[in-house]
Amino acid sequence: MTQITPVLLCGGSGTRLWPVSRKAMPKQFTRLLGQDTLYQAALTRLSGPGWEAPMVVTSEAYLGMACDQAVAAGVVPADFLVEPSARNTAPAILAAALHLAATDPDALLLIAPSDHAIPDARAFRDAVMVGAGPARNGQIVTFGICPTRAETGYGWLEMTEVPDDFAPRPMSLAGFVEKPHAARAEQMLAAGRYLWNAGIFLASAQTLITAFETHARGLMLPVRCALADATHRHGIVRLASGPWARAEDISVDYAVMERADNLCVVPFSAGWSDLGDWNAIWREGSSDESGVIIDGDVTAIDCHDSLLRSEVSGLELVGVGLTDIVAVAMGDTVLIAHRDRAQDVKEAVARLKAREAAQAEGFVTDADQWSRTEAEGMQYASRCVQITQSTEKTVPASAPETRWTVLAGRAFVSFPNEVVALTKGTSVSRQQGVAAQIRNPDNAPLVLLEVQEHRLTQKVAEHPTPFAIAAE
Amino acid sequence: MTQITPVLLCGGSGTRLWPVSRKAMPKQFTRLLGQDTLYQAALTRLSGPGWEAPMVVTSEAYLGMACDQAVAAGVVPADFLVEPSARNTAPAILAAALHLAATDPDALLLIAPSDHAIPDARAFRDAVMVGAGPARNGQIVTFGICPTRAETGYGWLEMTEVPDDFAPRPMSLAGFVEKPHAARAEQMLAAGRYLWNAGIFLASAQTLITAFETHARGLMLPVRCALADATHRHGIVRLASGPWARAEDISVDYAVMERADNLCVVPFSAGWSDLGDWNAIWREGSSDESGVIIDGDVTAIDCHDSLLRSEVSGLELVGVGLTDIVAVAMGDTVLIAHRDRAQDVKEAVARLKAREAAQAEGFVTDADQWSRTEAEGMQYASRCVQITQSTEKTVPASAPETRWTVLAGRAFVSFPNEVVALTKGTSVSRQQGVAAQIRNPDNAPLVLLEVQEHRLTQKVAEHPTPFAIAAE
Repeated sequence: MTQITPVLLCGGSGTRLWPVSRKAMPKQFTRLLGQDTLYQAALTRLSGPGWEAPMVVTSEAYLGMACDQAVAAGVVPADFLVEPSARNTAPAILAAALHLAATDPDALLLIAPSDHAIPDARAFRDAVMVGAGPARNGQIVTFGICPTRAETGYGWLEMTEVPDDFAPRPMSLAGFVEKPHAARAEQMLAAGRYLWNAGIFLASAQTLITAFETHARGLMLPVRCALADATHRHGIVRLASGPWARAEDISVDYAVMERADNLCVVPFSAGWSDLGDWNAIWREGSSDESGVIIDGDVTAIDCHDSLLRSEVSGLELVGVGLTDIVAVAMGDTVLIAHRDRAQDVKEAVARLKAREAAQAEGFVTDADQWSRTEAEGMQYASRCVQITQSTEKTVPASAPETRWTVLAGRAFVSFPNEVVALTKGTSVSRQQGVAAQIRNPDNAPLVLLEVQEHRLTQKVAEHPTPFAIAAE
Repeated sequence: MTQITPVLLCGGSGTRLWPVSRKAMPKQFTRLLGQDTLYQAALTRLSGPGWEAPMVVTSEAYLGMACDQAVAAGVVPADFLVEPSARNTAPAILAAALHLAATDPDALLLIAPSDHAIPDARAFRDAVMVGAGPARNGQIVTFGICPTRAETGYGWLEMTEVPDDFAPRPMSLAGFVEKPHAARAEQMLAAGRYLWNAGIFLASAQTLITAFETHARGLMLPVRCALADATHRHGIVRLASGPWARAEDISVDYAVMERADNLCVVPFSAGWSDLGDWNAIWREGSSDESGVIIDGDVTAIDCHDSLLRSEVSGLELVGVGLTDIVAVAMGDTVLIAHRDRAQDVKEAVARLKAREAAQAEGFVTDADQWSRTEAEGMQYASRCVQITQSTEKTVPASAPETRWTVLAGRAFVSFPNEVVALTKGTSVSRQQGVAAQIRNPDNAPLVLLEVQEHRLTQKVAEHPTPFAIAAE
């Protein structure tokens, strides 16, 4: 049986599935459909008999998530290829091919995005295996999705002939069509010899390298150097940042595929989506007879063709009389969009970023929130704080009166005239007007309970009143 | 100048302005329009030259809010009349009239809901003064709103003649019309001699008492007894619950107004709304040229005729391509409704209540939320808890390991074999499997810092992996 190595691309982050997908947690690592993340589903889909352990191409920022989620999914990647900076798909794919060719130039690579939905994994694996023959014979095999609508958001593939059906078999490819206007998309849908370009490719390592040498020669030196100077540790290959920065920022379509003449296409018609926006998530999900998909703590009254998601347990989302609405509620953000305007979520994120709202790219998490309660003219605010290994935190003199209790680890709290050493269960208070530093001296995390006392400045009871509330 | 005593009714709570208005914080005490609450706006509207200090009729549950908000608005009510149970408007108005008649039977009472919007307060005060003459002459003066649409949600008033204009002057009243069907409402709007019934009445205490004696005689004894046995303390008159419970639960319209023959009406056309649902809030607010009203941390992209409110600072609400939508985001709840379906918010609340969601009537507040942090396979959750005077809290044996530290007040913590007394700054731990009771022995509040320790059951680092992430 042919062995194929999946190369999963998961270094990117978009904004059209905000607020679930943010720069701090991009789409491929989120649970947009089902229980697994999209990346986990991709790992699982491309595993089993006939499949080598995958190679994962990602960035330093997402390496931790990529490792953790792979382990949780029960799939252990052979290598993580870490890009020092974002350079689009062409350099990443060349690096993967060169890395694999060092041990086996004939290895077959299935290059695939990690953030798409392919509900029938078995059908997809079968289609890939159909491409293995031509791939072994020096072809670059693309996988073309049988189109179901005149989609203007995708690139398209043109076949040389109109097939009788869309059963997976290698067919010759006439060329690539860039994202079309609506009229052109209608024509292509009607013509019957156009497929959506899913950005999935199968080829041997050597075939890919030759294609790059022929069509994108300028990429060879920087990528080879980045790989030659890479650091290897525990299966993690960190490409060298200097040479990598000199690689052109270009997609594999532009750099290689649209110029190569050894391409063929295998049609795939068993279901695929790039989950490009919230409307696509609605389209791929399981709706009730009214076309409504709910997820989490949601109450929908007389809604139609809508997607209502509460991402936080206990956060009640209620929809009344809605049609064609996408609503996503999180602890720090609520998005409500008309389904037809799902693409414009990108614009909303850009506006939030412009006014420096933290939610544009990150999460305002629970850990940043204080629990508060009031009593007798005082407000008490408490939170848990974690200080990672061998770092310190400075508290200015202006901060309110604070008490710290150690829950785990050890702390050295420095005041102007003394240093207090704290172990688990012990505590120290800081008066207002006195600066302090808290240091974690150990490699283990330090967890502190921080309590602030604020005197409430405007207390109703302090107003002179002719009446008072009293229990009888 | 005639002195008038405002009688503000603010004991009720509805559900159509949920989630801002909930049973725990009804509409009249919320900031639905402008900086003041509706109750504060009503207090301010009915004050100044010619106005006595107001009487506020409310329930025990809302007495604290009614006092605090009056003080914050700078208006000091003469009396708070506290209803032991909800009995609709007739018994409340009779109690107010009897209470005032005890010192001055000729006192003029303006009875008004506290949850309506009247933007032009001065015009309204002028209209009320127009009614003072007939009121002093034994008439019950109603205020009828010049209708602007065929509203089926209101009762209507019929005048005996079609006025030349709707300038405020006393006119004779032909009768009351209950909430009409749409066709009837259209007829009344066209006829020109119908006004909306705003539920606002002006009459002397004696006139009102006589009307009740004539038309609702059964209410006299229970209300007189509830007042006779009331407790008086610091300007708070708590009606006696026994006799009050025997008063019929009936509106003043049914009990008295629709039967009385000494009624007249003063038209008012300077703007009024009962703010009956979110659509009314949208109608009364200040919108931009697209008909969009935003409030709080909101980004609206290409929205039309919509109301977007974020009630929590830092909670980002984003609307994209919305038309005729009302959206209200709070920390524990998000409501999204089509404007035409605003009345059905009531139904949503009923459903939440049926499944015992706390948000139906109360607030899941910050104080209920835990701050969490994780370290070394443990999760630490902390929060401040307040235990009010002389009450106790029971912690079941099954709860995770807990530590309590007293921030204010005193606590008695009872374990099966011992009782620990805690003062400010001291703490005690509870092992899992041991039940405990915490008691506040004092009249002052007890504030506790509660920390739970959870062992994380599924920790990624515990899986065997062939790789590890390491800093170089």
